[in-house]
Amino acid sequence: MPLVCLTDFQAQARERLPKASWDFIEGASDEGITMRDNMAAFKKIRLRPRYLKDVSQVDTGTTIQGEAISAPICIAPTAFHCIAWPDGEMSTARAAQAAGVCYITSTYASCTLEDIVASAPSGLRWFQLYVQPDWQLNKQLIQRAESLGFKALVVTVDVPIIGKRRDDLRNQIDLKANLRLKTLQSPDEAKAVPSSLLAAMNAFFCWDHIPWLQSLTQLPIILKGILTREDAELAVKHNVQGILVSNHGGRQLDEVPASGEKGVEEVLNILKEEFRTSMTLTGCRSIAEINRDLIQLSRL
Amino acid sequence: MPLVCLTDFQAQARERLPKASWDFIEGASDEGITMRDNMAAFKKIRLRPRYLKDVSQVDTGTTIQGEAISAPICIAPTAFHCIAWPDGEMSTARAAQAAGVCYITSTYASCTLEDIVASAPSGLRWFQLYVQPDWQLNKQLIQRAESLGFKALVVTVDVPIIGKRRDDLRNQIDLKANLRLKTLQSPDEAKAVPSSLLAAMNAFFCWDHIPWLQSLTQLPIILKGILTREDAELAVKHNVQGILVSNHGGRQLDEVPASGEKGVEEVLNILKEEFRTSMTLTGCRSIAEINRDLIQLSRL
Amino acid sequence: MPLVCLTDFQAQARERLPKASWDFIEGASDEGITMRDNMAAFKKIRLRPRYLKDVSQVDTGTTIQGEAISAPICIAPTAFHCIAWPDGEMSTARAAQAAGVCYITSTYASCTLEDIVASAPSGLRWFQLYVQPDWQLNKQLIQRAESLGFKALVVTVDVPIIGKRRDDLRNQIDLKANLRLKTLQSPDEAKAVPSSLLAAMNAFFCWDHIPWLQSLTQLPIILKGILTREDAELAVKHNVQGILVSNHGGRQLDEVPASGEKGVEEVLNILKEEFRTSMTLTGCRSIAEINRDLIQLSRL
Amino acid sequence: MPLVCLTDFQAQARERLPKASWDFIEGASDEGITMRDNMAAFKKIRLRPRYLKDVSQVDTGTTIQGEAISAPICIAPTAFHCIAWPDGEMSTARAAQAAGVCYITSTYASCTLEDIVASAPSGLRWFQLYVQPDWQLNKQLIQRAESLGFKALVVTVDVPIIGKRRDDLRNQIDLKANLRLKTLQSPDEAKAVPSSLLAAMNAFFCWDHIPWLQSLTQLPIILKGILTREDAELAVKHNVQGILVSNHGGRQLDEVPASGEKGVEEVLNILKEEFRTSMTLTGCRSIAEINRDLIQLSRL
Repeated sequence: MPLVCLTDFQAQARERLPKASWDFIEGASDEGITMRDNMAAFKKIRLRPRYLKDVSQVDTGTTIQGEAISAPICIAPTAFHCIAWPDGEMSTARAAQAAGVCYITSTYASCTLEDIVASAPSGLRWFQLYVQPDWQLNKQLIQRAESLGFKALVVTVDVPIIGKRRDDLRNQIDLKANLRLKTLQSPDEAKAVPSSLLAAMNAFFCWDHIPWLQSLTQLPIILKGILTREDAELAVKHNVQGILVSNHGGRQLDEVPASGEKGVEEVLNILKEEFRTSMTLTGCRSIAEINRDLIQLSRL
Repeated sequence: MPLVCLTDFQAQARERLPKASWDFIEGASDEGITMRDNMAAFKKIRLRPRYLKDVSQVDTGTTIQGEAISAPICIAPTAFHCIAWPDGEMSTARAAQAAGVCYITSTYASCTLEDIVASAPSGLRWFQLYVQPDWQLNKQLIQRAESLGFKALVVTVDVPIIGKRRDDLRNQIDLKANLRLKTLQSPDEAKAVPSSLLAAMNAFFCWDHIPWLQSLTQLPIILKGILTREDAELAVKHNVQGILVSNHGGRQLDEVPASGEKGVEEVLNILKEEFRTSMTLTGCRSIAEINRDLIQLSRL
Repeated sequence: MPLVCLTDFQAQARERLPKASWDFIEGASDEGITMRDNMAAFKKIRLRPRYLKDVSQVDTGTTIQGEAISAPICIAPTAFHCIAWPDGEMSTARAAQAAGVCYITSTYASCTLEDIVASAPSGLRWFQLYVQPDWQLNKQLIQRAESLGFKALVVTVDVPIIGKRRDDLRNQIDLKANLRLKTLQSPDEAKAVPSSLLAAMNAFFCWDHIPWLQSLTQLPIILKGILTREDAELAVKHNVQGILVSNHGGRQLDEVPASGEKGVEEVLNILKEEFRTSMTLTGCRSIAEINRDLIQLSRL
Repeated sequence: MPLVCLTDFQAQARERLPKASWDFIEGASDEGITMRDNMAAFKKIRLRPRYLKDVSQVDTGTTIQGEAISAPICIAPTAFHCIAWPDGEMSTARAAQAAGVCYITSTYASCTLEDIVASAPSGLRWFQLYVQPDWQLNKQLIQRAESLGFKALVVTVDVPIIGKRRDDLRNQIDLKANLRLKTLQSPDEAKAVPSSLLAAMNAFFCWDHIPWLQSLTQLPIILKGILTREDAELAVKHNVQGILVSNHGGRQLDEVPASGEKGVEEVLNILKEEFRTSMTLTGCRSIAEINRDLIQLSRL
């Protein structure tokens, strides 16, 4: 049977991956309430389609922080793609480049940033930073990403410590032991950062450090994980260029096993096709025509 | 066991039909959320029965666009009835005529309009049009339907392109290849319209074309698929005679296998009886007595 | 295992009764939506318990239409108790008398009114009337019940015709053929009313006939089945003594198989005990202390 | 598999305990609606996390009625710990002392108060009183608890009589026969209180007796089971030091089998760790920083 939607890919991934890998990819924190909330919230959205508009031409293209993308779809930063396929983030980068979408590369990629860039030189990429306890290491990572052509710095703010992921504890995956964190290593293996540095997240990183980040780079800074109005207002006050509203805990599956990047490409194409179909069936001919009237707000 | 309600017929159809046919008839688009929404919305309706009224005489009859029907029940336009029984829409037409209800014949009927009319000459029928890319073909279809005695033109507006129906994709039904679209053919086989013309729906059909449709026919025009207040207001402004509020995606099963039209007749009679019972038990003696007070609006 | 709540009795009844009898007792009309609504509505009620009141003495007794009962519990009118145990309503009457509650005897009892009264002479009973098409028969039934000591006349108003009960149709129970309606027969078999008279319910019975009923009897008249504010206001205007808010379709199981009336007595005692426990745990020492503050209205 | 959350402990307890013991521990009253309400109410709470605050130091410590505890976690008063492990409340007391939390000891403990205190001399403990019909016995219990160093008196007000627990009735557990109520016995076995005194709860205990309780002891008095605004206001008026909002019927499992107190300690540590993680991930550095803004009130 052909794989016609993301649920089909998800089912196949579950079938083919070792249980511990699947649990790591799919697993939510604690009881999974937030992940189910996320799903339910998406399913509650109802569109208000407008008909009898000429939709023979529909353009899904737009820009993001000044860069063109073929559709408002990004690959969210996720760690350790080598769990799902051998050459990890290099495949992801090639598929994203082919699809014309933005790929937000994780601090915890299993390939080096240099290998990722080399594998898809013209793709649009942002770099996601988990702030490290070693300030010098943060500086090196940010400036290395900027010089490699990453176009924005995404700073994750909702992981002062790691949440409790029950299935991982039960599987006793020791990420630090089993996975080599090549991004955190410089291309020069001699200067490699020992992965044991990852033991502690950066619990003391706070608003006061934002100006320091801004002094290190010309890249736009996006805060990932903001959830309250109060924090959004503080973000504006600190002159960051954007926020990513996200709760992290309800991770979506965007990693699927297939022959090297072919699977990723297929998934991205399905998403793009579904997005174009939705635009067409709701009478939206361009991204600019998408507005609040499209949503049945009374349902939310 | 006797079949006493539509759910019984539905269960029997599922048992007897080949899986691909069943999926085509029953299948909803994408995840089926809208179809379940439809069911749930119906189940949320609660009636406010009034008692101690003389309901010894209950009349379910009414008119629709000026024509008498025995009850406010219509057969919605659905394609390819030959999937469910051999002589397809001819049986449907005979059953609708016997029941005294309106049968809205689909552009994609598997019998020719001429055969349908000949099989039940005195039945009330409307013609449903999927606007075709070839304007001349639209004109021919409309005028042919009008001259054959169809009493209204139902124009589907919510299919600028075909939605994504996952089960059909999985079953790889190629409607164009397997089904002969006789309605789109003229009775003269030599002038038959190749079904391949159906490849593209008419994505550029829009409000500007309504006056052109009105210039082609004296029939009342009904727009099928309007879902927003804004589009309903535009319909009034364009002087169409009616709208059918419908979301298409949540298709109801109104095709059931039985010996030729006997099954359709039984289903229509069940619907009529259930309607009459509901009128009697809520104290409504005629269609005119049905009003908003009958519904517990606070539940919706 | 001892039977400790009504659900236990219900489960045992399901196990022991023939399927057709169980379906008749338990079956709801059409899809059973109203019956589930009823259950759900009950389960939504939350009590607001008041503590630190002296509840060492709790009195569940009260009066109904001027007659004393041991607790505000009545046996609703239900037909054909002989389906569940051999001597039918005679057992029910004895158990109700022993428990000190009111037994509303159905028009469609399977014992004669005379036998019911003889079996429990001092019990409180009301008579439920399904208005018959034959006015003379109505008059005879009402006056016979009054002279036998029934204390109120309960007139069912929500059955102008019989609703559609799918399981009965599937089981093809022919109530008229299989059950002898002894109540409708006079004690003198020679004057027995043929049960075929029950074929038609009284669809033309309406508000205009209430004064006629009132002219026939000194008994208080209670209308059973009123569901709307409008009809309740009409009932007041017609000087009836009470209404029973009920939707009939969601019938509760109050018939259970056990050795002759012992089961009924046990069920009534369980209900009385549960009622007394609820009064005690919410700080109500008498029926007069039960008021609207006891219910968490915001939940309804 | 390691036990990583309370649900894991609960599942293991269910597996290892005899059915009657499990039913007693887990069982809710009647249909268990209130217990499910409790669970659902907890699951409805959504936190509003604030980020980019320095949470490298998080202090979960606070005080309760003037005494220090390591986290705002108490062991609720529950009866008969010997059902789950041999030396019962002595293990519980040692584990609570090790975890630095408050242990509210039940009137119906299966160990004597003296043994409990001796097993963990420096732990913080409150004494929960089921008011007994014998006033002299109440006085002895309260003064004995005070002299043993218990720091508050928790008076249960929502059990004027015992609710109906169906599973216990089905299992026919006779608590009085099978369990020795050592707390109610004085250390001197010769003066032991016969457990049959427990047959009746104290249904006449009411607000008028509060001053009498206050005259017996210097301990703060906490009323357990208050559920309405009205009763909370009466509590203030009677100068009690606190109320425990609780509905008793939805008992949470806080008793788990493990080797002697090790299991209890693990559970308390899991709770403390989960609490600290929640504080850290929501940006709360101390108990004082937890306020109403932390909760998404619109969801409740």
